[in-house]
Amino acid sequence: MTGPEIEKLIQLLARLPGLGPRSARRAALYMLKRRDIVLLPLVDALKSAAENIRTCAICGNLDTSDPCSICADQRRDAGLICVVEEVGDLWAIERANAFKGRYHVLGGVLSALEGVGPEDLNIAKLIERARDAREVILATNATVEGQTTAHYITDRLAGTRAAITRLAHGVPVGGELDYLDDGTLTAALRARRAV
Amino acid sequence: MTGPEIEKLIQLLARLPGLGPRSARRAALYMLKRRDIVLLPLVDALKSAAENIRTCAICGNLDTSDPCSICADQRRDAGLICVVEEVGDLWAIERANAFKGRYHVLGGVLSALEGVGPEDLNIAKLIERARDAREVILATNATVEGQTTAHYITDRLAGTRAAITRLAHGVPVGGELDYLDDGTLTAALRARRAV
Repeated sequence: MTGPEIEKLIQLLARLPGLGPRSARRAALYMLKRRDIVLLPLVDALKSAAENIRTCAICGNLDTSDPCSICADQRRDAGLICVVEEVGDLWAIERANAFKGRYHVLGGVLSALEGVGPEDLNIAKLIERARDAREVILATNATVEGQTTAHYITDRLAGTRAAITRLAHGVPVGGELDYLDDGTLTAALRARRAV
Repeated sequence: MTGPEIEKLIQLLARLPGLGPRSARRAALYMLKRRDIVLLPLVDALKSAAENIRTCAICGNLDTSDPCSICADQRRDAGLICVVEEVGDLWAIERANAFKGRYHVLGGVLSALEGVGPEDLNIAKLIERARDAREVILATNATVEGQTTAHYITDRLAGTRAAITRLAHGVPVGGELDYLDDGTLTAALRARRAV
């Protein structure tokens, strides 16, 4: 008795990550109750995003301009490329405000299970960019797929002069040892540094 | 470095119930990566919902028609009115497929804390409808506010001939006693029935 119109909306909302069928229903109702202050502004923002946001042809970032504002920023070190899986990872590093180089977004990870091969990722372009780079930082996730992808890229970059580095493993800042997994603790011990 | 366009979208998504800032970012990226199969269909569904869905002037339900399809359905018992807090509660009862009367959606609950008084809820119309009703079922939530609202409505309906009932409290079907709160167990014991 929800009606096909609302049902359609709920189904589409339920596809978003983090929203199941129940929370999609709640979100739909919430928007319908607040048409002018939530629903219509969201329609405008989504439409505008669909029309104006494009993928940067150089690095794969999402932005209103192509090349993106990071690739176009002359103050950022073009010789330093940080390779990430997704645009969300790029945002995370930008939020930390600790990196002044450029990025390269792979658009996923290698996965035999899901049938994702090297040709499905933004890797060819990375090999090309790496020729002029001083250093390539592999910042894929510390998951099996992320590490496999990093290994694959390391092999492919074997011929270039760029130094290949990866993020350090260790105890998260503010983290408690008691809650850490064995792998992280082992990595933190092995990479211990003089005080 | 997310850009104002994406930032705006994320902020609007983060207002939805069930989505925090982090999941709003994930949802925004998910949609931007799947423009044609997720983002644009969602824009259409939201626009169409904003344009076509209205509040039923009789019961407060949301539907593409006014009166809504439930109020317009002559096979449904007009003498039996089930009072709920929100349209989502109406949907829940409809899903159970166990009620063949009509509804009345209050649009919230009385709350001194949030400054919601009787005049902010769809109560005047309920008093009017109750004059011609045989029974009014109070199906507000079993929360303090829900029960306060039910009491208030019971008082207001004192003059009408309609029987005032409420949903039974007890052990949820499929529920384990060990996980139930004391209040529910006490209610279930008090309302015990002969086998």
